[in-house]
This record gives sequence, structure tokens and C-alpha cells, in this order.
Amino acid sequence: MDLRTTSISLNTEGKTSIYDITQRVADYIISGDIKQGQVLIFAEGSTTGITTLEFEPGLVNTDVAEFLENIAPYEKNYAHNQTWGDGNGASHLRSALIKTSLTVPFVNKELLLGTWQQIVFIDFDTRPRERTIHLQITGK
Amino acid sequence: MDLRTTSISLNTEGKTSIYDITQRVADYIISGDIKQGQVLIFAEGSTTGITTLEFEPGLVNTDVAEFLENIAPYEKNYAHNQTWGDGNGASHLRSALIKTSLTVPFVNKELLLGTWQQIVFIDFDTRPRERTIHLQITGK
Amino acid sequence: MDLRTTSISLNTEGKTSIYDITQRVADYIISGDIKQGQVLIFAEGSTTGITTLEFEPGLVNTDVAEFLENIAPYEKNYAHNQTWGDGNGASHLRSALIKTSLTVPFVNKELLLGTWQQIVFIDFDTRPRERTIHLQITGK
Repeated sequence: MDLRTTSISLNTEGKTSIYDITQRVADYIISGDIKQGQVLIFAEGSTTGITTLEFEPGLVNTDVAEFLENIAPYEKNYAHNQTWGDGNGASHLRSALIKTSLTVPFVNKELLLGTWQQIVFIDFDTRPRERTIHLQITGK
Repeated sequence: MDLRTTSISLNTEGKTSIYDITQRVADYIISGDIKQGQVLIFAEGSTTGITTLEFEPGLVNTDVAEFLENIAPYEKNYAHNQTWGDGNGASHLRSALIKTSLTVPFVNKELLLGTWQQIVFIDFDTRPRERTIHLQITGK
Repeated sequence: MDLRTTSISLNTEGKTSIYDITQRVADYIISGDIKQGQVLIFAEGSTTGITTLEFEPGLVNTDVAEFLENIAPYEKNYAHNQTWGDGNGASHLRSALIKTSLTVPFVNKELLLGTWQQIVFIDFDTRPRERTIHLQITGK
């Protein structure tokens, strides 16, 4: 058993923009010497999210954003906004809800995902950001 | 330290039907040689979910479904539905929200769950499915 | 590679009270002999939650509670309440939504969190509780 850690960068648009990072995670596994185990994907930042999603335009460009806008709208007078003036209270709520961490098992260096199940990073902030996502493989 | 991986199958009804898989997870730990560590439970598919829940009829048959129906109703004209015609946009949103992965620690081959805290699989799809859930134990 | 397991206790107020446990998690890592790896934080109980949040008064005392009250109100006639009479159906729904588990990587005994990203425990129950949170470090 051993472990490997790296991080990847991502330039985002914010406003619940969604990015498919499956291939970058798979590449890290393929390039290494650990054949079976699990990969922890952890996004830095309190306005980020990691989950799985079928990466198709309807969900990615419309449905996820509308769903979250309905339950945690960007334009609302959050207590967070009154304190900090950065107007991204909704971004923090969405991140606490979706969470910034996911662990996916792999065997023979292949992620055990469903066919339509991609690993996605979501940027909930209200402006473009440069993001860091940590990948940590544990296995043998 | 070592790791073990297996998968279990589940025939589901869909429509946010909820299944207690705690005993199957516990059985896998008990049958093995790893005494302490953690078990990763990962459901394949972009319309599935894994979480913990008190497995009692009120929550399982009524409350969870009503809660999710309120925030992500099945009958809505999602962009996903317009593209694919499979009418399960809500299933994808619910899965991205609840997520398909959970890790639970164990000691002396016993899961460190609360008394009323069961590990559940939820099928958010709109029809019956045969599902695969991966279990991966890491420990010693 | 090795693993270490401990648990910490927390006396809570309930009603979606939020506690910053980052320092307690960091202390456990610092006090041990594992330099890099990951820490699994797992809260016992079906009315608890673990996530990350910027721990500032606006979010902690107002926004998170209002957000959850809007989608899963405490005062509602849940099927769970009719069965058990403990009136905490909303607590169970919030816990199944936020989930009770989180894994955070660390390197050189330092958690790979963002600057404003704290690890928080949330007690969703309707009354004060004494809680147990399990910490399990895997690494080398």
C-alpha cells in the first residue's frame, strides 16, 4: 500500500460553471504505479464543489444552475454579504451543500464510474477564479 | 495495511426508492481479514445516491421523497429532458446533490455508526434498475 | 502506510448549531506520526452533518439555518414525527442531505484546506446533544 498526492489547476468562470475533470483524474492514475485503490478529489475553497454528473449540455448549462438558483439564489440579502460586501453568500451555501470532496475507487487503473457518470468541479463564486484541486491516490 | 474491493447488486424500483445496505456492508467487513479501517461505498450511475438515514417507514416511504420532490420535482421541463427524451432530469439533479459516495470507519470489524444511522442506497431514476455498488475496504 | 483512529466529543445546542472543528482535526494530525495522507471525519448520529464552511458569523448564525429552514422546515407534519413523536423529521432530512462524512488530504501534517475553508460539525437535532465524531488518519 502506498499513496501519491498531486494538485491540478483550473481557470473558471464562476457563477456555478461546471467542469468535467474525469480525464485529468484518470490520467493521474494511469501515469502512476498504483493499480487498485481509490482517489480522493478535494477542491480548495469555500465556494467550490465536487460531485458526479452526466456531463451533457442540458444539465451542465441550465438545469443544475436553475435548481440551485431556486433554493439558494445569488441575489438575496444574506447576512454574509452584509458583513463582507463580496456578495457571494449563495456561493458559500451551495459549496457547504454540495461539498468539496469525493472519493472514487479504481481497479486495474480504471475508475469504477458509470457510463454517464463524470467527476465534475463546480465553481459557485460570483467571479472568475483560478482553482486548486488536490488528488490523492491510496492503493497498491 | 491492505485493501479489498468487491461489488454488490441491487434491483430497485426507482422513483427515489430507498434501500438499507448496512448489513451487506457489515457482512463484507466481517467476512474479511481487515480488522480496522474504513469502507468506501460507491454507487455506479448518475441517477443514484448513497447517504445515511434512520431507516424507518416515515422517512423512507414519505419524507425524503416529498422533500426532494419539493426542491427538484420529477415533472418539470428540464433542459436534460428536451435533449434526451428520457424524462429523468430530476433524477440527475438529485444524484448530483446527494452524491454517490460515502466512507464509514470501522474498528474491531464494527462500523462506527450511530444506533439509528443506517447506510442507504437511493435510486432516483424514473424506472426500475439493476444497480452496482462498489465496496472498498482499506485498513489493517 | 498506517492508520490511526480516535474520537472527539462535542456538546451541542442543536437546531442547526454549527461548530468549527478544524483545530481539533489539525491537532490530531500534528500529535501523531503520519506525515502525509488523509483524515476521515465521520459524525455518529442520523441528525448530524459534516461539511466545510467559511466560519464567519453571518453564515454560521443566520444564512445556513435560513437556507435549510426554507427547504426543510422544522415545523412541518412529517411522517417521521407522526410515528415517533420526537418532532425531528427535518433534522433527519438535513442530515441525509449534508451527510455525516468528509475526507480531507494533508501533506507535511498540514490540511490542504483553502484559507476561508473550515471543517464544521452541524447539529440538526431539535435539542442539545452530546456528540461523538470519529477521526481516522490513513497515510505514511
